[in-house]
Amino acid sequence: MLEAARWQTHHVSQRDLLVLTEEPLNAETRLDRQRGVITPAGRHYVRTHFPIPIGPTVLELDGARRIELSLAEIRAMPPRTVRVTLECAGNGRRFLEPAVPGEQWGLGAVGTAEWTGVPLARLLEEAGLRPNTAEVLFRGADRGIPKDLDREIAFERSLPIADALREDVMVAYAMNGAPVAREHGGPLRLVVAGWYGMASVKWLAAIALLERPFSGFFQADRYVIDGRPLREIAPRAVIASPAEGAVINGREKAATIEVRGYAWSGAGRIAKVEIIAGPAGASAAETWREATLGEQASPYSWREFSLRTLVAFDYGGPEMDVGLMARATDEAGNAQPLGARWNALGYANNAVHPVRIRIRA
Amino acid sequence: MLEAARWQTHHVSQRDLLVLTEEPLNAETRLDRQRGVITPAGRHYVRTHFPIPIGPTVLELDGARRIELSLAEIRAMPPRTVRVTLECAGNGRRFLEPAVPGEQWGLGAVGTAEWTGVPLARLLEEAGLRPNTAEVLFRGADRGIPKDLDREIAFERSLPIADALREDVMVAYAMNGAPVAREHGGPLRLVVAGWYGMASVKWLAAIALLERPFSGFFQADRYVIDGRPLREIAPRAVIASPAEGAVINGREKAATIEVRGYAWSGAGRIAKVEIIAGPAGASAAETWREATLGEQASPYSWREFSLRTLVAFDYGGPEMDVGLMARATDEAGNAQPLGARWNALGYANNAVHPVRIRIRA
Repeated sequence: MLEAARWQTHHVSQRDLLVLTEEPLNAETRLDRQRGVITPAGRHYVRTHFPIPIGPTVLELDGARRIELSLAEIRAMPPRTVRVTLECAGNGRRFLEPAVPGEQWGLGAVGTAEWTGVPLARLLEEAGLRPNTAEVLFRGADRGIPKDLDREIAFERSLPIADALREDVMVAYAMNGAPVAREHGGPLRLVVAGWYGMASVKWLAAIALLERPFSGFFQADRYVIDGRPLREIAPRAVIASPAEGAVINGREKAATIEVRGYAWSGAGRIAKVEIIAGPAGASAAETWREATLGEQASPYSWREFSLRTLVAFDYGGPEMDVGLMARATDEAGNAQPLGARWNALGYANNAVHPVRIRIRA
Repeated sequence: MLEAARWQTHHVSQRDLLVLTEEPLNAETRLDRQRGVITPAGRHYVRTHFPIPIGPTVLELDGARRIELSLAEIRAMPPRTVRVTLECAGNGRRFLEPAVPGEQWGLGAVGTAEWTGVPLARLLEEAGLRPNTAEVLFRGADRGIPKDLDREIAFERSLPIADALREDVMVAYAMNGAPVAREHGGPLRLVVAGWYGMASVKWLAAIALLERPFSGFFQADRYVIDGRPLREIAPRAVIASPAEGAVINGREKAATIEVRGYAWSGAGRIAKVEIIAGPAGASAAETWREATLGEQASPYSWREFSLRTLVAFDYGGPEMDVGLMARATDEAGNAQPLGARWNALGYANNAVHPVRIRIRA
């Protein structure tokens, strides 16, 4: 606990991250400062449930055989590298009405890193699978007493066996070319590409095979909507610039607005991002316009988008409020909803979120 | 100058970089600590000719029109992101015999980053091209007196117009998702994907059109072999592990060696990396074996390679010296030479470099 506290004092600056809570540490990526695909480790959002533990350097695998693999042994296996956008399932919770409990994330509980490790399937091969395996269970070294519980538990999550064997599910030891930092779950962290972040168990300590579905707290009481565990990240586009409340000077009854942001989906590549810019409050007579997309660095990675748009100054007076909206559609055809789908714990709120700015004649 | 010196004291640690010279700053990537594709900014090799200047935030473009573009204006244009392996043309110079003058680089003057910026072609469009343009000239804000010259000059380099217009030649403002750090040429740096690093002018201050080939010091007196300016990076594989002089314990008359490293080429993707492990000094009766390759993150990016190989303990005695060699071939069919091609200034020495280790019974 002391160790965790000391860690925070040294490392976190509001310039690099927007800190929501310090203990446990929860902090957002500053999308306004993000450029390109990769989020540097020191600027990548952090989600923790409990104080940051010292992660183990030995991984227990309870398969057909019970084995232990050291960090050095795992690092010696053929590596796999994938760029992955991780998003917290609670991202955007702050905008739900009526308000729901939980970390009040804005839209920055998301980040993209290059993760290097060994496919989980390869490690399970090492320990051997058992017939009748329904799920694979992962235990992190972090533990504590959740708010609605009266006893200490470890952070534990499972994956159905079919999902666990996907080649892009890996036990990672490197993030952006360097060892995984402590706040990001190092030395060993599970990375489940395409899924909300709760599946990517940090400070990975042990892996076991289960014959029936796991029903632990973080699987059955949290990270569920209508009793169903969350899985793939829903599509979302977030406007990083201009910022809410920005004032832009126009000229000759129009203002040029440079809209920029990021779009991602766990269910497929981003097919398009559409943008509307129009007088705030007016019924949207404007039509959606397609933004220019940056590269899709991997099937699991966000894409940068940008659009330069001219907003005409229709109204009298020297100033006008303008609303900007961005909406993502992935290649599987999933489009972002315009309105929020409220749920009691505030998960997966991927509704289009308007940004209001002001233009001046 | 004071500013440059102060910068160094604060930022460089031998743990992150191998510093060859402090003023000007020249430091190698520690490939032994590198994992995955991306090299974090603080661990990416640094090549400077002069003290690190404060880079300008306005770029002068002398085209059909003479214009200035601010950093903010450049950042507002549609971005392009490319992962690029940059290598100093003098990488490997230390291994040339007889020795040649210049920075005595080992094999770590190489690194891979995600660069985000605006294609140069887009900026040239803004300023307009002129007929009869043969080359585009780039001037950095760094200046000083080179060892063999009696006057102060700026770092200047040119590109033939056809090369300058390639879409992957860009003026970059971000490296790995963050603003380009000062030691890497920020705020604005040219990035010429696929070429040796001297072409990627740092602290970019001005761009101009030329009607005839540029013959400045860094174009005609340096970075040339046999009078020809260097261009694309020659293929190379570097063994990152085991390290030179490592001792590995064997068992039952054999030792398992995990060979790991990086391979790259500026002329095309890496097609294969072959490895030999055999008794040092013995004629290579061994055959080359193909290593497993990691992803090729972009046409200009290095690939990780790895091979687990068993070396038999043929000799009497409790110890045996083993030589390891790795050789890269790119998809254009260029293979790394086994012997060095010596040249007076020691450029482009991409010869296979043996690593000697010792195995113990």
